[in-house]
Amino acid sequence: MRTYAKESFPPGKIRRFLEPGPIVLVTSAHEGERNVMTLGWHMVLGFEPALVGCYIWERNHSFSLMRRSRECVINVPTFDLVNAVIGVGNSHGPRIDKFVKFGLTPVAASRVRAPLIAECYASFECKLVDASLIDRYSLFVFEVVKAHVATSPRYPTTVHYRGDGVFMVSGRNLSYRRRFKRVNL
Amino acid sequence: MRTYAKESFPPGKIRRFLEPGPIVLVTSAHEGERNVMTLGWHMVLGFEPALVGCYIWERNHSFSLMRRSRECVINVPTFDLVNAVIGVGNSHGPRIDKFVKFGLTPVAASRVRAPLIAECYASFECKLVDASLIDRYSLFVFEVVKAHVATSPRYPTTVHYRGDGVFMVSGRNLSYRRRFKRVNL
Repeated sequence: MRTYAKESFPPGKIRRFLEPGPIVLVTSAHEGERNVMTLGWHMVLGFEPALVGCYIWERNHSFSLMRRSRECVINVPTFDLVNAVIGVGNSHGPRIDKFVKFGLTPVAASRVRAPLIAECYASFECKLVDASLIDRYSLFVFEVVKAHVATSPRYPTTVHYRGDGVFMVSGRNLSYRRRFKRVNL
Repeated sequence: MRTYAKESFPPGKIRRFLEPGPIVLVTSAHEGERNVMTLGWHMVLGFEPALVGCYIWERNHSFSLMRRSRECVINVPTFDLVNAVIGVGNSHGPRIDKFVKFGLTPVAASRVRAPLIAECYASFECKLVDASLIDRYSLFVFEVVKAHVATSPRYPTTVHYRGDGVFMVSGRNLSYRRRFKRVNL
């Protein structure tokens, strides 16, 4: 599987990769255990600091790893990883090493223990900054403390979940920059 | 502009239209005023009941209409509305009637005062069920109490914001249903 050469990227701008709504692969690690899960329910909650809300179902094994470690990495896969996205999303429990099974290469992160995924277009190292909404909404509020983004292509071909086993693959990218007020760019 | 013939749709399934991450047009109304805004920061927070979190910037005129009325309608536009999406997103303040200016037809909703938009593919009537996160995160937690979805096409061609004035248009839709465990569909 291809890997992406990534560079350090300003956390304040990572919203451009999450706002379009791609499926992401979230990694976690705690006390010798590691895991990866497929996630579609996430949103940008701010850019200075860079906050991301993630809905993590309490029955996911990752839930307890993230809650205890207070960390994760949000990785943005491209369409060539769709088999891993589906495989990871349909595997549960701590007994399988999903990195090995689905050909995902863990790479050491710099600020957290959870690994980056070499085959993903972008990886965002996150610290849990607010655990108070976990019990009520399964909502983890993370701050992106370090970001790594591929140097090319400019726009990743991402996958988006339509439900019922159907994925939408991102299509054309069109600039309307001239029609925007500068303050809104 | 084309309008969509819509039918009543189960709120518990509307996540399939929001999880892919489209830009939405959110309408609001209160005490004789109405407004529409462009929104990219939203997420599904549950399906039974159908909860949606929306980040509404406090400086948007819609913020106060939604906070006071405790209602809104989340409308899903398709690519043919991209000019309205940009125009609405770059217009601010209460003095412009954006429905008139951008050719959006308001249609009476059944459970809320905010209008549906006839030209949108889907419209979700929402009640604010939790205002406690507005001050901390500008996060409105809405419950979809009534949904209207176009009878065709099966999948809308949606627009997704990549930042910096660039939109991604949704591309191919591919079913991997056979590869999913039934419980995950």
